[in-house]
Amino acid sequence: MLTEAELDRLCVVLVRARNPSNIGAVARAMHDFGFGRLRVANQFPVPFEAARSAVDASAVLADAVVYGSVAEAVADCTLVVGTTAVGERNLQHELLSLAKAAPRIHAEIERSTAAGPGRVALLFGSEKTGLSNEELSHCHWLLTIPMHQPGDARHVSMNLGQAVAVCLYELVRGEASVDTDLRANTAVPADAASLERLTALLSEVLEETEYTRRHAANSDPAQVRRLVRRMGLDTVDAPVWMGILKQALWKMRGGREE
Amino acid sequence: MLTEAELDRLCVVLVRARNPSNIGAVARAMHDFGFGRLRVANQFPVPFEAARSAVDASAVLADAVVYGSVAEAVADCTLVVGTTAVGERNLQHELLSLAKAAPRIHAEIERSTAAGPGRVALLFGSEKTGLSNEELSHCHWLLTIPMHQPGDARHVSMNLGQAVAVCLYELVRGEASVDTDLRANTAVPADAASLERLTALLSEVLEETEYTRRHAANSDPAQVRRLVRRMGLDTVDAPVWMGILKQALWKMRGGREE
Repeated sequence: MLTEAELDRLCVVLVRARNPSNIGAVARAMHDFGFGRLRVANQFPVPFEAARSAVDASAVLADAVVYGSVAEAVADCTLVVGTTAVGERNLQHELLSLAKAAPRIHAEIERSTAAGPGRVALLFGSEKTGLSNEELSHCHWLLTIPMHQPGDARHVSMNLGQAVAVCLYELVRGEASVDTDLRANTAVPADAASLERLTALLSEVLEETEYTRRHAANSDPAQVRRLVRRMGLDTVDAPVWMGILKQALWKMRGGREE
Repeated sequence: MLTEAELDRLCVVLVRARNPSNIGAVARAMHDFGFGRLRVANQFPVPFEAARSAVDASAVLADAVVYGSVAEAVADCTLVVGTTAVGERNLQHELLSLAKAAPRIHAEIERSTAAGPGRVALLFGSEKTGLSNEELSHCHWLLTIPMHQPGDARHVSMNLGQAVAVCLYELVRGEASVDTDLRANTAVPADAASLERLTALLSEVLEETEYTRRHAANSDPAQVRRLVRRMGLDTVDAPVWMGILKQALWKMRGGREE
């Protein structure tokens, strides 16, 4: 899990972002994964007002900073990583898949957090044109999100908000899955004695319903035992099934209240 | 990397999707990562026309299929996985982080591709409400995208298009390739339609035996559905259990030979 201080090292830099709903979507993805530093490199006024309505992203948008150029937006960064769709142009940079890029980004985030100074910038271009060669030239290396490239080699590029979400997910992915407190399967398997009682009850039901007579091939005791074992019962469900079978026997035997 | 045949095994199921731009965003994420099977479970008309304008997603949208219920949308699926934001409700299911869910999903995709039949359904609820308990009860287990939960524990949920993009990215990401040890079992899981028939039969038995009256707390329809899903039935055992339950009903209803 990245610490708050580590999360704070990463800057998402949108280059020439103009669409308010895209900016809002990026801010929301940042919020979801715990990142707060949004920077926009844009020579034109940035339509934050329209984007500010985006759900769950108000704090990120309120803290967003606009720079007049990429150089200014990444000035305090010790690692600048550009994002690109493969095949977009003849790339002059080293290019890593997102999964391989993440450990390198982590390393610089950890270094700068522990030993200061520096930040990591992750650059995203506009959806239509991506990052220009000039903009890419500010980057140390590039990453790409591997996408499906069908035979007809049609150019694929992702929605900006989705691309940012996927990149940030990858950055928090590793350790998060280890120590996030999920509802693991805490089930305790039922013990053999319980399963054997259940097997006996089921056999009684099969007798009582005349299943045994009709489907003799399925009613061999070992077969019924294996059928019950394959249910994979835990200590919660085993008594439920016993209750169901007991109730069925009670009903078939006349159903009188005790 | 998933093959074309494997990509074709996965269905993205949107439950109660109404917002055309969300549906378009989901279709685009599917297109980007090579998935084509979009299903919508919705009692209301689905605004595909408005969504069809979405960039790069026309083929996915053109092939989308609308179903009247979750049960119908997942009927041919042998693994049904629900997505949820942690803390959304008291979950009754096993819950895995996305990174841990991916290998399990891969295993079933590989099994069904190699040995037929079956598909894997990935269910997404509406952004506002997520999946209801009834909808979740159709799932074998749940996954969640680990998100930043700040100290104030504000409820976090992701944008639908971003959530789908992140899930599909994880599935094609590569390193998450299957742990072969998981796949020793040659059993073919029962599909959701069979499990639903079994659930209906069990509910009838519970009524007929008066179990429902005596143990109302265990007889909620969603609870019965989950109980059946937890049996982990394959295509061999599911018909056996149906035979047992039908025989019990026959007996309790008078047991006359046809």
